[in-house]
Amino acid sequence: MSQSFNQHFKLGILGGGQLGRMLIQSGIDFNIDFTVLDPDPSAPCSTLAQFKSGKLTDFDTVMQFGSHCDIITIEIENVNTQALKQLVKQGKKVFPQPEVIELIQDKRVQKTFYKEHNIPTADFVLTENAQDVLKHKTFLPAVNKLGKEGYDGRGVQIIRTEQELSKAFDAPGLLEKLIDFEKEISVIVARNEKGEIKTFPVVEMVFHPTHNLVEYLFAPAQLSSDVIKQANNIAEDIIRKLDMVGLLAVEMFVTKDSKVLVNEVAPRPHNSGHQTIEANITSQYEQHLRAILNWPLGDTSLVIPSAMVNLLGEPEYSGPAVYKGFEEVIRERGVHVHLYGKKLTKPFRKMGHVTIVDEDVENLKKKAIFVKETLKVIAA
Amino acid sequence: MSQSFNQHFKLGILGGGQLGRMLIQSGIDFNIDFTVLDPDPSAPCSTLAQFKSGKLTDFDTVMQFGSHCDIITIEIENVNTQALKQLVKQGKKVFPQPEVIELIQDKRVQKTFYKEHNIPTADFVLTENAQDVLKHKTFLPAVNKLGKEGYDGRGVQIIRTEQELSKAFDAPGLLEKLIDFEKEISVIVARNEKGEIKTFPVVEMVFHPTHNLVEYLFAPAQLSSDVIKQANNIAEDIIRKLDMVGLLAVEMFVTKDSKVLVNEVAPRPHNSGHQTIEANITSQYEQHLRAILNWPLGDTSLVIPSAMVNLLGEPEYSGPAVYKGFEEVIRERGVHVHLYGKKLTKPFRKMGHVTIVDEDVENLKKKAIFVKETLKVIAA
Repeated sequence: MSQSFNQHFKLGILGGGQLGRMLIQSGIDFNIDFTVLDPDPSAPCSTLAQFKSGKLTDFDTVMQFGSHCDIITIEIENVNTQALKQLVKQGKKVFPQPEVIELIQDKRVQKTFYKEHNIPTADFVLTENAQDVLKHKTFLPAVNKLGKEGYDGRGVQIIRTEQELSKAFDAPGLLEKLIDFEKEISVIVARNEKGEIKTFPVVEMVFHPTHNLVEYLFAPAQLSSDVIKQANNIAEDIIRKLDMVGLLAVEMFVTKDSKVLVNEVAPRPHNSGHQTIEANITSQYEQHLRAILNWPLGDTSLVIPSAMVNLLGEPEYSGPAVYKGFEEVIRERGVHVHLYGKKLTKPFRKMGHVTIVDEDVENLKKKAIFVKETLKVIAA
Repeated sequence: MSQSFNQHFKLGILGGGQLGRMLIQSGIDFNIDFTVLDPDPSAPCSTLAQFKSGKLTDFDTVMQFGSHCDIITIEIENVNTQALKQLVKQGKKVFPQPEVIELIQDKRVQKTFYKEHNIPTADFVLTENAQDVLKHKTFLPAVNKLGKEGYDGRGVQIIRTEQELSKAFDAPGLLEKLIDFEKEISVIVARNEKGEIKTFPVVEMVFHPTHNLVEYLFAPAQLSSDVIKQANNIAEDIIRKLDMVGLLAVEMFVTKDSKVLVNEVAPRPHNSGHQTIEANITSQYEQHLRAILNWPLGDTSLVIPSAMVNLLGEPEYSGPAVYKGFEEVIRERGVHVHLYGKKLTKPFRKMGHVTIVDEDVENLKKKAIFVKETLKVIAA
């Protein structure tokens, strides 16, 4: 009998953001009793589960929170892994494992892991400080990344020329060859304790023709079967070599000569898997639960093609969120709006996402653009 | 701007069972702030929203609960409609409207409504007491129904012969000609305040070959286009003539000569619409929200054929629920288990349901039988 149906079983989530919120929403189907830790008392999860406000990076806070859980998982990587290791020693299950979280927290260790395990990735050099970066002029153009605490675009910058070297990060980091990629793709892969592995269909990012920002993403990706095979192999290879239990999102580049290189990974549900809620037999959220609870993994195949648009706070608005264009977009067939329960908007804050499903891929893309142009988060 | 995105908007649900639970689960996508009233402090909704324990049939309790809401809806019909009418007078929105709930609460009024509005239904006579039923021997075989407070099979019995007349209900009720039906079907229809109407695809019930119990239901129903048209027309006709806002489930018989007759209706999400969560562009729960919030109704078309199996407590078990066969069934592609969060099982209690999706209808039916035979709710 599955332990989760024990009447006193409790699943703890470190982080109470939208990923935790959608994990809880999925877990309702299985009577799962969730408890959540997040520093923000009004985090998206706060009204949907037992909730504790506290610092995810504080040893004592995580220890105390974990002591009331049977299984602990994360929805953000920046957590105190020392406490998680201690909780494992005390007999708690922690998935993904603290060692995996630690490896992924530090981009230097992550890149070194790829190199040591023959996982294709862009060439790189480790750098200790700004002075050190200056030594690698011949490596330009390159991406300069901080080892730790980069998140959602922070801690990552492009250095194209010698002139730009002055902005190099003055902390342990790395310099990675800038890839002139053809496409950016993602594969989400799951693994349970029994070692069963399943990948979701490859997702493709679409960039705005002039701004360098992801406009929307869609699945199935329009790629050759060889590229799809490379991508799936890389994703499966990484989760197996990490010996990880849980969900791993693997972001990759496809180069102009059709080689696939791993960019970075996240050991949790991911932005590039939101559309699986509507479009796949099993959603990434249910798959994460199945993986960490050691249930059989779910079938990941597509039921219908889908696109996903992030709903970000408009640049010039801060305050109580208002969703302009909401009725116009939900009038369209196959448009699913997901709001994250954040009362206040601010520029570029992730306020929600929209999934669009359509049997016809060209229609899908048109609707994604329509949603992007119509639905706006402004302030009251 | 939609009122629901007002930062202090609150949607109250009378009833905290599984229908309310799935309504809340769907409403998470729209940041809807729910509050629930139910007599059972551990009702399925109790952990997912603001929750108040109290009697749904008590005037003062419903008044007090409703005074904190902006819109009030129901997930069970047996509620105090006097209080709801009073709340409407105070400016609250109540959908379905109290008058509609009242009409449906009393099967005598409901049947009379069909007759007066030329909606096809089985012939019937109203009866005041057991004595009265005896006068209608020529009407047998018939179904004897109590006017009020019948629910989930209670208050309904078949009287086939004169000998059986002794069990007639001794309270206001009715006697309805027993229909020798070919099939039992259901259509869920929604209507918003603007008067927009949409029906979900017809659902067909499958009965066990020997027991007279619904084994599973599936969509799309395997019916002639003429029967489908009759069924849709009846559903739309009823919701329009009731001038109702919200979701209406219309259960119907298809006679052996392909006529469609309405059996009874429920003005809320319904057991015959659970599978829309996975299988349709819009689920019945989201559609109910769209209808009562006066948003554009969602497209109801099927993405994939589906079947739904109710998960009832096994006859000989009472106590803390255990779900035997859970891992066996979730291993199958397209099997979605929904548990209702009830700690205790008892014989025939609705503990959950299972939706099965499959492109192939014959496969679907095989899987439905497999689920029915494999997954059992017993007690620890």
